[in-house]
Amino acid sequence: MAFKGAIELELFTHIDGGSATAAELATRCRASERGVRILCDYLTICGHLSKQQNAYSLTPTSQAFLSKNSPAYLGSMAGFLINGFQVAAFRDVAGAVRKGGALGTEALDPESPIWVEFARSMAPLAAMIGGAVAPLLVPDAGPLQILDVAAGHGMYGIAMARHNPDAEITGQDWRNVLEVARAHADQAGIGARYRTLPGSAFEVDFGGPYDLVLVPNFAHHFDPAAATGFFKKCRAALKPGGRIALIEFVPDEDRVSPPAQAAFALTMLVGTPAGDAYTFAEYEAMLRDAGFRDWEMLAAENIPQRVIVAVA
Amino acid sequence: MAFKGAIELELFTHIDGGSATAAELATRCRASERGVRILCDYLTICGHLSKQQNAYSLTPTSQAFLSKNSPAYLGSMAGFLINGFQVAAFRDVAGAVRKGGALGTEALDPESPIWVEFARSMAPLAAMIGGAVAPLLVPDAGPLQILDVAAGHGMYGIAMARHNPDAEITGQDWRNVLEVARAHADQAGIGARYRTLPGSAFEVDFGGPYDLVLVPNFAHHFDPAAATGFFKKCRAALKPGGRIALIEFVPDEDRVSPPAQAAFALTMLVGTPAGDAYTFAEYEAMLRDAGFRDWEMLAAENIPQRVIVAVA
Repeated sequence: MAFKGAIELELFTHIDGGSATAAELATRCRASERGVRILCDYLTICGHLSKQQNAYSLTPTSQAFLSKNSPAYLGSMAGFLINGFQVAAFRDVAGAVRKGGALGTEALDPESPIWVEFARSMAPLAAMIGGAVAPLLVPDAGPLQILDVAAGHGMYGIAMARHNPDAEITGQDWRNVLEVARAHADQAGIGARYRTLPGSAFEVDFGGPYDLVLVPNFAHHFDPAAATGFFKKCRAALKPGGRIALIEFVPDEDRVSPPAQAAFALTMLVGTPAGDAYTFAEYEAMLRDAGFRDWEMLAAENIPQRVIVAVA
Repeated sequence: MAFKGAIELELFTHIDGGSATAAELATRCRASERGVRILCDYLTICGHLSKQQNAYSLTPTSQAFLSKNSPAYLGSMAGFLINGFQVAAFRDVAGAVRKGGALGTEALDPESPIWVEFARSMAPLAAMIGGAVAPLLVPDAGPLQILDVAAGHGMYGIAMARHNPDAEITGQDWRNVLEVARAHADQAGIGARYRTLPGSAFEVDFGGPYDLVLVPNFAHHFDPAAATGFFKKCRAALKPGGRIALIEFVPDEDRVSPPAQAAFALTMLVGTPAGDAYTFAEYEAMLRDAGFRDWEMLAAENIPQRVIVAVA
């Protein structure tokens, strides 16, 4: 919560711009000096700032990722990861454990505004991940039809289009979310190769056939049976020999490592009716049952997600 | 939030009682196996449980403090530290920083139910702190009149009464809170030496004179001027040579160490109009301005709070 407050106040950006004391920062942030001092002290305790006498400075990490002056700025993520919906989902963890799933299901409602916020907030991080993953998935030239399922911000499909100037992308998501993906595609200069396909991923006709179906951060919202059924639908939209590519948090078989990937299961417990952070063995079983073959898991450097690829 | 959920489900207690797998625990907790598995994995990631194959076990720390079978059980603290009021206070940190204080002031309302929850939830921890602090403050025999201001659970005054069988305690707090303190005094077997004084600490006549006025975890809710005025009121209720004893989180002069004590300032920013985690130098100034002398800061082993004593 403190972190989100600091992002909203653009505290890191103002420090990067030369303001150092609570008094200077309070003027910049149009906030109280006392409030700024207490928040900056808290961020120092957490390791996001350094403090010498009464002057605050950025750590290398906060400089790179939390100042809006940095090209790698990721502060917008707070808008999705720490928004009211997420906090509300965690309000009654005991209740979700008793039920075995979310007490509310707003996240899966048609055209939920949550996913517009997601598309806006998470785009910078997704752009980095997409850039790292694209070379693993597509050649850098040659015609390629790609379906990006539940595209959200669109950055995964857009990364493929940037990596391969002959690739054509179909971005599928709710109509309100696709407006964000469309804007990102145009900003990335690949708008002419970007089509949109609005509707429910479970109900809309995917068209095709495609060479590659991207399924980024989507299958974890559903139970294995629903995900398997969905993978079948993806397979039907692929050319013979075409591939599906899941981009997912994949914990080890012990389900308690690596920490961030394994911890994601709790977010799925409180936020979805039956989602989970599935292991590779579980994804193997789902893909097998959906008729895929030759599955493998790929890792890109410095990326917490894994890419699971299988052949139709 | 996960931690609070686990306490509500009595997960740690059921593991202590011999249930080890998610299936066994789900039966005990009347919860879903899937939910229990995900929560236990999360608690394992956080270091509160261990996991071997599919069996969960307590760490030494969770065994000592989170199983209701342990005499040192502190799990009730979640009821105050992670309740809806606290979470709501942190909902808009940027807003509190702009304003320089809490956006709501429910915590300081007369007879706020927050302090009844506080008195119930925090009693076990306060009993430990009180037990450690009592030998620093009172002799183990001899008549002694002690006022416990904003007594809450009453455990600090009760600890003094247990340490000194001749001490008589006056517990002051809101009427609804004092019902909890009264019950604790009776449970501790010192009810005959426990008087209650209901009302606002700022407005009620303290009576006296007292040998010792305890002010535990109270001054941090107010600005220095209000705290100084309040200390004057305490001084007026003391015998000549009597002492005031603050029990407080006291950060170092750099305000970013030790971590827990310094971080407490943020809780005061978002939860009170003008409270803070004050340094020893700041308390010295307030006590001096209130007419006290010979102030010193005492530390008890393994206790995060400090005791600041001064002579009237």
